[in-house]
Amino acid sequence: MPSRDYTVAILGATGAVGTRLMEQLAQSKIPLKQVKLLASARSAGKKLKFADQTLTVEEARPEVFENVDLVLASAGGSVSKQFLPEAVKRGAVCVDNTSAFRMDPQVPLVVPEVNAQQLKYHHGIIANPNCSTIQMVVALEPLRQRFGLQQVVVSTYQAVSGAGRRAWQELLDETQAQLDKQAYTPEILPTASDAQHYPIAFNLLPQIDVFETDGYSHEEWKMIHETKKIMLNDMDAEAIKVTATCVRVPVVIGHGEAVYFQLADHTATVAQLQAILKQAPGITLQDDPQHQIYPQPIQAAGSRQTFVGRVRADAENPGAFHMWVVSDNLLKGAAWNTVQIAEELVNQDLVRVP
Amino acid sequence: MPSRDYTVAILGATGAVGTRLMEQLAQSKIPLKQVKLLASARSAGKKLKFADQTLTVEEARPEVFENVDLVLASAGGSVSKQFLPEAVKRGAVCVDNTSAFRMDPQVPLVVPEVNAQQLKYHHGIIANPNCSTIQMVVALEPLRQRFGLQQVVVSTYQAVSGAGRRAWQELLDETQAQLDKQAYTPEILPTASDAQHYPIAFNLLPQIDVFETDGYSHEEWKMIHETKKIMLNDMDAEAIKVTATCVRVPVVIGHGEAVYFQLADHTATVAQLQAILKQAPGITLQDDPQHQIYPQPIQAAGSRQTFVGRVRADAENPGAFHMWVVSDNLLKGAAWNTVQIAEELVNQDLVRVP
Repeated sequence: MPSRDYTVAILGATGAVGTRLMEQLAQSKIPLKQVKLLASARSAGKKLKFADQTLTVEEARPEVFENVDLVLASAGGSVSKQFLPEAVKRGAVCVDNTSAFRMDPQVPLVVPEVNAQQLKYHHGIIANPNCSTIQMVVALEPLRQRFGLQQVVVSTYQAVSGAGRRAWQELLDETQAQLDKQAYTPEILPTASDAQHYPIAFNLLPQIDVFETDGYSHEEWKMIHETKKIMLNDMDAEAIKVTATCVRVPVVIGHGEAVYFQLADHTATVAQLQAILKQAPGITLQDDPQHQIYPQPIQAAGSRQTFVGRVRADAENPGAFHMWVVSDNLLKGAAWNTVQIAEELVNQDLVRVP
Repeated sequence: MPSRDYTVAILGATGAVGTRLMEQLAQSKIPLKQVKLLASARSAGKKLKFADQTLTVEEARPEVFENVDLVLASAGGSVSKQFLPEAVKRGAVCVDNTSAFRMDPQVPLVVPEVNAQQLKYHHGIIANPNCSTIQMVVALEPLRQRFGLQQVVVSTYQAVSGAGRRAWQELLDETQAQLDKQAYTPEILPTASDAQHYPIAFNLLPQIDVFETDGYSHEEWKMIHETKKIMLNDMDAEAIKVTATCVRVPVVIGHGEAVYFQLADHTATVAQLQAILKQAPGITLQDDPQHQIYPQPIQAAGSRQTFVGRVRADAENPGAFHMWVVSDNLLKGAAWNTVQIAEELVNQDLVRVP
């Protein structure tokens, strides 16, 4: 680590991810000069614990980014669009955990285990991918490097905390109401901004974010486009075929993903895949079905790791395999990946706007 | 319907499926002479409502099948193996909702919308497929007939009631304990017969039934083998490639399935698939994402229909599509399909042991 100390601002400090951004930053190796907590005017003045200090939340305004070195943003796409260019103008490097800049060709989209080498091309903003994309590419990349990757078909089982703090509370309140046989009117899920709201307690909602006219949800297109951008870097749309179905499930924390993938090298074996995954960065292999060892959301919650198990060959398609991937959507899927990018920027001495 | 009246025995009347077998039989078009409720010695003497009668549960013994025309069995594989040959010996035709005889080449495995024509080959026993298989083949068969089917990759989201009445209660009790932040020790899920038990409340368990040494669960192999037997009849293993990942989710009733499939005819369009599904027997098309219309377990519970939505093309693979299929696992997945087979046997005048 260089000897320089950094002033870091957290934009959206009061949300479900913001809480974890503070935790992950406090535990990180980044030498801190000062931490600023920023949020909307409504939350300004609120006092929050950061490590052993008590910090006061400030209202996000362009001027507060003066003398800030690093911004970690998770306050929604429109907030990032409004403030990050202002922060960059004032010399701050921004790691953005919203979808605002992810597909901008000027903005690296980074999962450190996969493409940390892209960071050096930043122009002030680095995007953190969508939660469901991150854990999948962490698991696929080491297999792609060794055997080549032709196609991915993923079905997600996504936790409610991915829809934010109010959705999380809705799941708990609605579940209690159901157990008590009381009426409950959902107001958030599947997507706060959409017209209809449906129960998630003891239910499945095959809608995450809003739909495109082609019948895919935004979440599904995010997984498709982001996976290609992260794994290929050159956005070669033909090189890896990716398709997805995204479903919200009544889980609090921890996304599950049933990933079916076709490797280029048909000689690959399950034992080889397991050996590679066992040594791959950021991955914990939990794959012993005979002893009922496989990834589960309640075990993954609170960990920075991506858990992989149930690696199996498709007996009828040479080179095709299944795996089951679980990770804490608020940590590796959001706060930890964001802080991990910031650590990489510090390590590579890239905390400057070119 | 022929004018003959039938004596029908329900084997396993007290279970989660047994309750629904009684409901579905009471609502069926089968002319009933007498209904006998059979269970283990433990439940004998118990009184249960059937339509407007009160019936007393009898202990299942070989002799009670004398003068029975039809047996509807759902008391577990070992019970079926013990008693169904005895019932057949006494002239009863048996519809078995366990896995005991499904892959026996002498036993038709029937979903009436798909292969009712197989019933005429029975030798006294007809098998009802696994719940997760039934709803998938109902949705795939009309598409296969029109466009040909080459490959299926399915990820299931299976409700806890599929594991029986005690598992269902475990989900409810465990969920309440979690909300109350109380300890709870699971004793049933993922599979009562296996060594380890894990929480299902707010969790995902990628294990349904026990595992084979190849890493697939029995449930996954059931979906693969049964789908081929039902759709192909001749068990041509090469004709349709099928692979599956089966996951238990904290839902009470209603299995969800993300079905990805490759048609032989690459000219097929989403509009054509929707038109076919809309008219197909047993299917309700719920496919209007722009208005947030898609199948959900809590809406499907209590219905005999299979609900299909989110029909989408894979933009990168000609002829490949997704659909999202939901059905009540206790009705179309079990009790209704069993009674529907019995109705077909009556209609086709096949209630006799050849």
